Parts: sequence; structure tokens; C-alpha cells
Amino acid sequence: MTLQPYILFALSVALMLLLMPKLLPLLKKMKFGQTIYNLGPQAHQKKQGTPNMGGILIGGITVIVTVLAGVYMAVKGQVDYPFFSLKNPLFALLVCAVGSMAIGFADDFIKDVKKRHDGLSPIQKLLGQLVVGAVFSVYCYYFVGSDVILPFTGKTWDMGIFYVPVMTVLVMFMTNSANLQDGVDGILSTVTACGMVAFGLIATLMGGNEIVAACCFALCGACVGFLRFNAHPARIFMGDTGSMFIGGVMVAVAMLTKTEFLLLLICFTCVMSSVSVMLQTTYFKITKKRYGQGRRIFKMSPIHHHFELCGMKEVQVVAMYFAVTLVLSAVAVLSVIKFF
Amino acid sequence: MTLQPYILFALSVALMLLLMPKLLPLLKKMKFGQTIYNLGPQAHQKKQGTPNMGGILIGGITVIVTVLAGVYMAVKGQVDYPFFSLKNPLFALLVCAVGSMAIGFADDFIKDVKKRHDGLSPIQKLLGQLVVGAVFSVYCYYFVGSDVILPFTGKTWDMGIFYVPVMTVLVMFMTNSANLQDGVDGILSTVTACGMVAFGLIATLMGGNEIVAACCFALCGACVGFLRFNAHPARIFMGDTGSMFIGGVMVAVAMLTKTEFLLLLICFTCVMSSVSVMLQTTYFKITKKRYGQGRRIFKMSPIHHHFELCGMKEVQVVAMYFAVTLVLSAVAVLSVIKFF
Repeated sequence: MTLQPYILFALSVALMLLLMPKLLPLLKKMKFGQTIYNLGPQAHQKKQGTPNMGGILIGGITVIVTVLAGVYMAVKGQVDYPFFSLKNPLFALLVCAVGSMAIGFADDFIKDVKKRHDGLSPIQKLLGQLVVGAVFSVYCYYFVGSDVILPFTGKTWDMGIFYVPVMTVLVMFMTNSANLQDGVDGILSTVTACGMVAFGLIATLMGGNEIVAACCFALCGACVGFLRFNAHPARIFMGDTGSMFIGGVMVAVAMLTKTEFLLLLICFTCVMSSVSVMLQTTYFKITKKRYGQGRRIFKMSPIHHHFELCGMKEVQVVAMYFAVTLVLSAVAVLSVIKFF
Repeated sequence: MTLQPYILFALSVALMLLLMPKLLPLLKKMKFGQTIYNLGPQAHQKKQGTPNMGGILIGGITVIVTVLAGVYMAVKGQVDYPFFSLKNPLFALLVCAVGSMAIGFADDFIKDVKKRHDGLSPIQKLLGQLVVGAVFSVYCYYFVGSDVILPFTGKTWDMGIFYVPVMTVLVMFMTNSANLQDGVDGILSTVTACGMVAFGLIATLMGGNEIVAACCFALCGACVGFLRFNAHPARIFMGDTGSMFIGGVMVAVAMLTKTEFLLLLICFTCVMSSVSVMLQTTYFKITKKRYGQGRRIFKMSPIHHHFELCGMKEVQVVAMYFAVTLVLSAVAVLSVIKFF
């Protein structure tokens, strides 16, 4: 049997549909109910009590399916490195994704199980992400190369040693961006499912990135399966566990394929979530200093809450984000093809 | 400069946006107004007088851009056959696409310029398509091979000499299907734009089909540009000229890449248009024979008129067809990837 994306996709979806109904009552019973961010829109207050940490399954299933695919490829002897070797991108990918997930899990665990509302402090989170980002960036520097693709030009840009600090910041930025975007029912699952198809195609079109592609299709399946429970009205959230895992995968597949610039295109909505928060807080601080009272650019940040407060329904926001991601993904995938 | 899809896409869009405003008043002046099919929905009567034959530009631009891409590839010396040779799929592709377009043009010309409402007789159309289909099928039999890919199995099916008659019928079926689907503002342009990205990706992923891929991206651009004028409310129709050209390209790119079964997936909405007409007329004839009065399955066929008469707006029908095509296209593209 040949290994094809739809097998990995179907396996992930099946595992999710099979396992989540078992996990859901467990999470509910253990009262993993999320304390809804008390600065979110008023309409979100009724979400109090919805179980959290569904991301455990997104991460778990993606890892299992990707490892299985990696073993299959190694057994078939079609990859030009041994399974247990630093050249195998599988382990680096897992370090970045599962490392980020662990930080999110710690945060969720403290908030929901220990019932300490604060979770990890921002400094603790950033330190953890710094370590994960630095380790993964150094790996990529030595085993992937310090050049990144400049889309639409056919050229690459060798960043030299600056690659490591810049990419470390990118890892921190993307995991936090994914985390910030996860604030509307089904929004991050939808956008990720679409983006992962794009990255799976990009990795395949570029060649030599089969394991990266396999991981993309596995995560896509996990997200589609998760939507069964996470679509509005959500019966479960993925939590920081899920969103930081997704952020970790996003940035890892981009770095392993040198398509960091396409990441900003495909994950434009994620990036916007972060940027809108930065703009909002910066503007608030500046105006507070100047006028004594802080002013706001958006009604609320991240920007998806702004759209909600402007009167859009949650599903409309998700549909809009999906459409934007879809078009930008198509542009990104096509930019990789070169006829000569 | 490297040749990339977005260059061909952008070139097609630009040419369409540039040339159509020049052609539109010309077509209006020459009173190429289409006589609206008097069996269509009542609401379509007001479309009387909308100029037709916009397909000339869809076909013309696609051909020009594809030929330019073919010349570029030959000059770069990256294809392993001389430009003027039977091995170059460019000419076969043009025979199928432009041959089909010529039949559609003859029909439009007789209807709109000669003002003879009947146009070509069904027998004349089918004979023309038979010739085009037979020539192209024989070419593919000798230069592409008589095996077709069975999706999701990793196997191919060698049809032997039966390839020629079956594929001849497929060419006739697809050109007529595209023609039948073209009955709602922007529907065929939208579905084609999406399907051509899928086929462009498939041709690229399979390798060795650069010219086929180039043609797909060129036609995609032409359709997107055409939507500027053809989206509801349409200021111009593509006419049989355009729809038969599109049908010809669809079937040609599928046959040149052996993905005939994926064609039925990607162009599912096209196929449904034909099938719904066949079901409707067959059922009508059978019931007329049995009960003395003909009965109908759909309120009207092709099936998009049925949806309209059920209360859907034109744009809603287009959106639904686009969504279906998008999902099926994604499935088709992913089915081509094999990790080993």
C-alpha cells in the first residue's frame, strides 16, 4: 500500500472522533472547565464551564500519526537517513511542537486543575518558548540552512548567524499568535486545517520534505475531527495546550521548508491577532501617558473580538477568517511552483 | 526570471481586464445579444440583450499565454522534446480546446449574427465533437498511453484499444457538460477557476506536465478576469464559444495527465449538469409512454435551474457549486501525492 495524505488525514479524523467522546466526560468530571477570560465579550460569559484542554488529543493524535508515517517511510527505506538520526526532521519537529504544547499544558493545568486563575506568568511562558525556539532554531541553522525563501522572486536570502535569534523570536511570536487567535468557537481549528493543507502541498511540491508534509496532513485531520466538537456552539476548547501545539507545528513546518515568509501569508489571521493586541496595548499606553486616559484602536483585541462587538456572529467571523486563509494559502502554494 | 504560475495567472487577468472593455461595446454594437433560452426560468427573461461570445477572449487569452509559456520552456531548453514535435503536448491540447471552441463559435455565430435561433443542429455539434474527440484520443493513445490512474488505489488501469472510443465519448460528454452548466451568471467561470488551480497542482505534482499546468493557470486567470464582467448581474456571457473551450481544456488536461477519474471529481458540478438533463428527459419520455403525460424529476434541468426555482438566488447557487468544487478539488489534489 502506498502512503498517501488521505490515509493520514482519515486516520487522524477517525482517531479524534473515536477518542474525544471518551475524553469529554472525563474532562468534564475532573472539572477542567475553563475560567472564561473576564475581559472577553459579554456574550462569551455563558461559555463558563465548557471543558478545556481538548488540545491534548489534537497534539497526541498528530504526534502518533506523524511518528507512524515516519516509521513507515524509514521501513520502506525511501528516506536517505536512518530513522534515529539528527538528520531526520521528525524529532526536531516534535521538539518544537511538543515543547510548545508542554508550556500550554502547564498553563492550562495550573488554571483549571490547580484553580489558580493566573496560570503561568508571562515571563515563565516566554522563557519556556525562548528555550524551545532557541533549540529548534539552532537545529535548523545546522541541518536545514540559514537561508530563507523570498517568495515571488525565485531567490533565497541567507541570514547567516542572525538566523538563530530571528527564528527564535519567530517561534515565540507564532506560538503566542496561535494562542491569541484561539478565542472564537472553531476559529483556530478551521484556519489550521486550511493552512496545513497548504503547507502539506508546499512541502510535497518542494520535495524531500515527506515527514513535514505527513505531519501537516495529520494535524489537518486532527483539526477537522476536532471541529465536530469545537464548532459553534463549542462543547470543548483546545486550550493553550492545543493552540500552542498548533503554533509550534506551524512555525516548525515553515522553518523546515525555509518558507518563513509564506508562513506570514498562510497564517496571516494568526499574525493579525498578535499584531492587533500589540497595536492596541501600545496605543493605549501612549495615549494614557499623553492624555491621562488610555484610548483604543479596536473595540477589543485580539481583533476577532472587535469584529464580534461590531455585530458579527461567531460563525461569520470564522467564515471570514477561513476565506482569507483560503485565498492566501492558494497564493502561497502557487508561489512555490517553478516551471524553470 | 523563473516562470511561475502567478506570472501566467496575472498575465491572463491583466489581458482580460485590458481587452474586455474594448470588446464589450463592439459585441453590443454588433448586436451579438443572446436570445435567452425560452425554456429557462422566468427571471432570466430580463437577460435578453446581454452580449454573448465573451468566450472569444477566454479562449484567445488562454491560448496566447499558454503558447508563450510553451515557447519560454522550449527556449530555456528544459523540456526533453523540440518545440515543433508531436511529443509537445501543447499542440494536442490546442487541437482539443480550440477545436471544441470552434464548434461553439459556429453555434453562437449562427444564433447571434445570422439570427437563426436554432444554431447548429445537435447532429452537427456532435459530429464536430466526435472528430475533435477522436483525433485527440488517438493522439493520447500513442503519446500518453492507454492507462488511466485509479485514484486512492495507487494503481493504473490499462484500457488497451478501448481507450480511444471511451475517451472520444468523454471529450464529447465534457464539452457538452460545460456548455450545459453555463446557465447562471458566473457559475462556469467560478467553477473553472477553482478546478484549473486543482489541475495545475495535479500536473505539477505529477511532474513532466509543465505545459499542461501552464495552460491550467492561464485559463484560471482568464476566468477570474472574466468574472469581473460575468459575475451577477452579468454584463456579458461567454456563450458556447467559451463553455465549449473550457470543456475542451478540462478534458484535455485530464487526459494528458491520465487523471480522467479525477476529472469526474473536480468537474462534478459539470457532470451533474449533464446527468440531470439526461435523467430528466429519459424519465419524461418513459412516463409519457406509460401514463400518456410526461413527468419530471427536477422542476427544470440542468439542475442549477431546479435550485433557482426552489428559491435560491443566482449567487447562492454559484456559491454552493463553488464550495462543492473546492472540497472535491482538494480531495483530488491530495489523492495525487504519494509519500512512497
